[in-house]
Amino acid sequence: MTSELAVVGQRVPKVDAIVKATGAARFSVDIRLPKMLHGRMLRSPHAHARVLHVDASRAARLPGVKDVLAFPDVPRVLHAGQPEPRAGSCARDQYILDDVVRFAGDGVAVVAAISEEIAEEALDLISVEYEPVPAVFDPEAAMLPGAPSLHGTDRNLVIPPFIVQSGDVERGFAEADYIFEDRYETSRHVPCYMEPNVCVCEFDAGGRLSVWTSTQAPFMVRGSLSEVLGIPMDRIRVICEHMGGGFGAKQDLYQLEYLCALLARRTGRPVKMEFTRAETFIAGRSRHPVSIELKQGVKRDGTLTARFGRYVANSGAYGSHGAGITRVGTSALGSLHRCPNVRVEGYCVYTNTPIAGAFRGYGAPQSFFALESQMDAIAEKLGMDPVELRLKNALQPGDRGPSGTPFINCHLPDCLRKGAELIGWAEKRRAPILSGPKRRGVGVACQLHSATSYPAVKEAAGAVVMLNEDGTAQILVGAADLGTGTKTILAQIAAEELGVRYEDVRVISGDTDVVPYDIGAYASRTTFIAGGAVQLAAAQAKKQLLALAADKLQTPAEELEARLGMIRVKAEPARTISIKEVVGPVRGAAPHSVIGEATNTPRNDYSFAAQFAEVEVDVETGQTQVLRMVAVHDIGRAINPTSAEGQVEGALQQGIGFALMEDMLIDAETGRTLNANLVDYKTLTALDMPQIEIVLLESDDPLGPFGAKGVAEDGMCPTAPAVANAIRHATGISMKQLPITAERLLDALYNQEGPVPD
Amino acid sequence: MTSELAVVGQRVPKVDAIVKATGAARFSVDIRLPKMLHGRMLRSPHAHARVLHVDASRAARLPGVKDVLAFPDVPRVLHAGQPEPRAGSCARDQYILDDVVRFAGDGVAVVAAISEEIAEEALDLISVEYEPVPAVFDPEAAMLPGAPSLHGTDRNLVIPPFIVQSGDVERGFAEADYIFEDRYETSRHVPCYMEPNVCVCEFDAGGRLSVWTSTQAPFMVRGSLSEVLGIPMDRIRVICEHMGGGFGAKQDLYQLEYLCALLARRTGRPVKMEFTRAETFIAGRSRHPVSIELKQGVKRDGTLTARFGRYVANSGAYGSHGAGITRVGTSALGSLHRCPNVRVEGYCVYTNTPIAGAFRGYGAPQSFFALESQMDAIAEKLGMDPVELRLKNALQPGDRGPSGTPFINCHLPDCLRKGAELIGWAEKRRAPILSGPKRRGVGVACQLHSATSYPAVKEAAGAVVMLNEDGTAQILVGAADLGTGTKTILAQIAAEELGVRYEDVRVISGDTDVVPYDIGAYASRTTFIAGGAVQLAAAQAKKQLLALAADKLQTPAEELEARLGMIRVKAEPARTISIKEVVGPVRGAAPHSVIGEATNTPRNDYSFAAQFAEVEVDVETGQTQVLRMVAVHDIGRAINPTSAEGQVEGALQQGIGFALMEDMLIDAETGRTLNANLVDYKTLTALDMPQIEIVLLESDDPLGPFGAKGVAEDGMCPTAPAVANAIRHATGISMKQLPITAERLLDALYNQEGPVPD
Repeated sequence: MTSELAVVGQRVPKVDAIVKATGAARFSVDIRLPKMLHGRMLRSPHAHARVLHVDASRAARLPGVKDVLAFPDVPRVLHAGQPEPRAGSCARDQYILDDVVRFAGDGVAVVAAISEEIAEEALDLISVEYEPVPAVFDPEAAMLPGAPSLHGTDRNLVIPPFIVQSGDVERGFAEADYIFEDRYETSRHVPCYMEPNVCVCEFDAGGRLSVWTSTQAPFMVRGSLSEVLGIPMDRIRVICEHMGGGFGAKQDLYQLEYLCALLARRTGRPVKMEFTRAETFIAGRSRHPVSIELKQGVKRDGTLTARFGRYVANSGAYGSHGAGITRVGTSALGSLHRCPNVRVEGYCVYTNTPIAGAFRGYGAPQSFFALESQMDAIAEKLGMDPVELRLKNALQPGDRGPSGTPFINCHLPDCLRKGAELIGWAEKRRAPILSGPKRRGVGVACQLHSATSYPAVKEAAGAVVMLNEDGTAQILVGAADLGTGTKTILAQIAAEELGVRYEDVRVISGDTDVVPYDIGAYASRTTFIAGGAVQLAAAQAKKQLLALAADKLQTPAEELEARLGMIRVKAEPARTISIKEVVGPVRGAAPHSVIGEATNTPRNDYSFAAQFAEVEVDVETGQTQVLRMVAVHDIGRAINPTSAEGQVEGALQQGIGFALMEDMLIDAETGRTLNANLVDYKTLTALDMPQIEIVLLESDDPLGPFGAKGVAEDGMCPTAPAVANAIRHATGISMKQLPITAERLLDALYNQEGPVPD
Repeated sequence: MTSELAVVGQRVPKVDAIVKATGAARFSVDIRLPKMLHGRMLRSPHAHARVLHVDASRAARLPGVKDVLAFPDVPRVLHAGQPEPRAGSCARDQYILDDVVRFAGDGVAVVAAISEEIAEEALDLISVEYEPVPAVFDPEAAMLPGAPSLHGTDRNLVIPPFIVQSGDVERGFAEADYIFEDRYETSRHVPCYMEPNVCVCEFDAGGRLSVWTSTQAPFMVRGSLSEVLGIPMDRIRVICEHMGGGFGAKQDLYQLEYLCALLARRTGRPVKMEFTRAETFIAGRSRHPVSIELKQGVKRDGTLTARFGRYVANSGAYGSHGAGITRVGTSALGSLHRCPNVRVEGYCVYTNTPIAGAFRGYGAPQSFFALESQMDAIAEKLGMDPVELRLKNALQPGDRGPSGTPFINCHLPDCLRKGAELIGWAEKRRAPILSGPKRRGVGVACQLHSATSYPAVKEAAGAVVMLNEDGTAQILVGAADLGTGTKTILAQIAAEELGVRYEDVRVISGDTDVVPYDIGAYASRTTFIAGGAVQLAAAQAKKQLLALAADKLQTPAEELEARLGMIRVKAEPARTISIKEVVGPVRGAAPHSVIGEATNTPRNDYSFAAQFAEVEVDVETGQTQVLRMVAVHDIGRAINPTSAEGQVEGALQQGIGFALMEDMLIDAETGRTLNANLVDYKTLTALDMPQIEIVLLESDDPLGPFGAKGVAEDGMCPTAPAVANAIRHATGISMKQLPITAERLLDALYNQEGPVPD
């Protein structure tokens, strides 16, 4: 008898590695249909204006133009990123097209033509009469009385203030030996996924709508289109076979899905709408720029006595995921360390700027930047080592967060210790290079992140497992694979549970016609929740399989086990039968049908991480180079370590960019985006990447499939504060605004007087 | 409270009526892929020869030719229409390409080129050196010692003689007052489906094979390709979205599926192979030409005392479904009437002629032609009315067939009575027009047919029912829709059981990647077996649904019922809730997942029918015109009466053709097909069709879904003898060979002397 895992934990190649590497994989952007039209959108140059009149007559006369739509031509229905299931996280404040534009880039009209070029040309022929109205770009200004109102809400708030409180903050501050107060600011960080947003819609002669789109949540798209266009769900098919990334932004809907479907319905032809790279910036979804006021009280020994945080997120012109993000980000601001008295307040504010939305970390990276930056200020003041201070305050298994959330499987202290050891913390902290133009420093920061959207949103993930007659298997899963390797992970889980080989499992996802419901690739939930559904469905199938094998082996099913395509008697490993022999056809008989299905139930769990950065700062140019990152992640079981490491590695690329360079800039006068391209918006290239060491601190989580927790978002949550703390170590300067560009750091270095002023 | 059916029994339009009527439906023949090659097959001009050498060098050099394959280039694997599950019905006697050709039309080589024209041109450039060997075309001759042997079997038999016996036939004949002995012969009847056989194969970069093919049994194709090409089933996807008919012939494999896949693998490009219309004749599957010796003993009162039958089927060059057909046909020869002493023998014989295979009726129409023709001879001899004689001997509920098969739900006598009434039997039999050149007559014949292939083959049909968040549903079914309306029927069954509206159900079939296993559209099984699977899966889903509703309505689930999208308290019909409200998302919660799955278990049942024909024979030309057909069918519940009637109507078209005109002719010297086209092979056009009255005698079958039995094959089984008996009534001539062409009838009329010589 063995209980070793045969497939889970293996570094198997991705199921779609070859088709992706060879260019054979079909992405939504690759879809080309006969007689397909191309749609392009006219966008507002004004940050806030009434649209008095749209004259599309000249555009409509351009040869090749088949349809033009403006706000009077489309249903006046408020649409949301998701309808009801995400009402707790998503606003419902945007019309398909409106007679008001609320940011420079807001949609005004759309053209369908026989080529993209003609559609683009037609946009210039549309005359729009705007009446500009005052705009507001800053959230604090937007909350003031008399500020221009975007949606008629109190203080331009997307949701009422979100407050988490535990203990008595005033008393906590009174008990403190020291009080620290800082204000932190983060940037407009853009996900820069490879595949621009794209949508192809086609109605068949029977009125069924097929939608190929690049989405993390095919069922969200189906549900929203069904509601907004009034088409029953069984008549809408949403397909996303392969996907070039999303990072959260593609768990929202853009106008293009509705408009594409409307154009297809009106013209009777397939219509494709694809964002330009510029549109992925201007009309995409950035991370929320957040300003955080953070005040903490500590005892001389480093014990936290109180924390007050004020989290103000700039939602831009519409709410998108702002409600959920403000909840998660504000909650994160109250978390991570043991603190008896906490009050955190979250504000999500409309401004006349591009829309912020979901992006890896979902509001938490901003909070950890503030929290973990201030922890280093505290350590310095107390003369404590930053790792020691964190260990002293780290969450322990059994602790609860300020809102009562239990942390059951928590290995944060181990992450800190392991990372410190690997980076050579003790030695490097003792001897920072503080002379010469190039100065080196090391910094640390931690994070925690929930695997799922539960309890904010009730989870649902379905899976169906069907055994083929030759012992291979088909798995239908609702979960989408946004390029992260979902299908690979789910194939491993199915293979392990079912007892077949990895290569004998075929995972089908991304087609709402044939897979069971799944809320979408939100949060860091897919392995945890969808993986759990696959495990449950496979277990159900295995039960049927072992019952059939019990007959053939003349042994009770409980005494059998399935592994790598064979079933054997546990006590007599030589007595085996292949799964093919069990289920396959024999002369005159049909094969045995083995089908399992399951929907996973709502649950949640938290992953933890400590990251260590080593940087070199050129104090003559202000340029920071990250030399090395050590990332230690407590993620439960790694179903596929290569895949989990890949998630962390990709997140580090985004996290370092968030720390040092990435920021979509808005013109302070017009509200227009200044760097909506990959030349002026800088991200780390392969050459900019530091040496990376990733350690997966594995444990057997009691809730996840084969002990797995989430990992997708965690990798970037502590990166920016780790880098900022390393810069502080190298230079003595605490940078409180992201990104820490050379310009900003040089400015701070010029103004530096002696030790850091905290 | 109501127990009325809301959806089942309704004449709803077919789910794919619009896409088919507008030409939007995508058939396998419509598939066009980038860089697709076209394959054509070189066929033997010899009926029996050794292939000594194939020189394809000139063909390979033709610009545009990408590959040429002959027997040395392909795996030497015996393939069967189906692998193991149908081993009882199908022979395993054919190589993909062989060094012997066994009929004029047998495959010799195949070319893949960039166009069909070039591929066709290349065929002429292939030099083949044949060594002709003696051929045999007649089954009786083929069984003689010294006959050329096709496959080295005893007497050229496909299977050992199949014998069913009950009672003591010798004693039965001794007890008879009269003995009747006749020999009947049937023709090479061709299904003439609209969509020729076609196959498109494509390997993706990862080595997965996609196959678009026009098949009644996608899982059979997957299984056979897997076995023959050595590709695991999870790496083969067989797709058949819409299909232009099959009538049984497409439950077999042709060489083209293997060759198309081999060519695609070798060339690295998609390959399409499509039969010409001529190939659907020459290399398709016809009904087996059968000769039947039938001897029956009767008492003066019409009681049958004994029956001996000898059924000799001409299988052509390969076995195909001959084994199963011989069993079914021979069993049919022993059935239909009560007879205490029966012995029937079946022989299936290889000859050097085109391959016979499965075709609507599966061997039974030939037997009923013999049986029901001889019944009229008996009636005439005894001076009894043919309907009376049949009623006297008709099977009754509770009877068993000679092999012990029980007939539980049998309404054959009602069918006879109802049809006699409708056609005005008593009056028309009294007064046949026997003078002048145009003579009218009426005839009757009966049949029974099993719904499934069980117990010859173990049945298996899977279904998965998934409720969408808006209360509509997706149904995944393994069963294929060969154009008969399967999806419509299954949608009705699902809607009825689930309690939703017909239009709220989406049925997915014909894609082995996503649907559960099904043996294929064999027999008349789809409504009965696959419909049963859908009902079971829907019932499982409804159980979950009512449990959720019970919470919301505060009423136990047993007291609730679902109907047309609403759930109500049975005792208080005003207390309702919509299914959408039960399963749909509510603020902050995911929708409830409702999934049911089922595999139907093996079972069987029989349908019965009596058909009445009225004909007008021109005794100067021998031409017969069928004026009217009354078809009364005992099919249990009609799920969709329009669809069931459509099945009978289509079957009558084929049945009358079988009776009067359809015959693929083989040159007696060369074995070559003489009329492989729709000009020289005559079928009934719309203008040739008689007035048709179809009566569905409905009952509530205990085994089928909502009481349904099968209907697909029944319609044509009694047609030919009904027409032949009407001709006998009109002319006094008993025609014992099909088809009853004008030439044959005129010949018989010239030789007629007084009353019929029986």
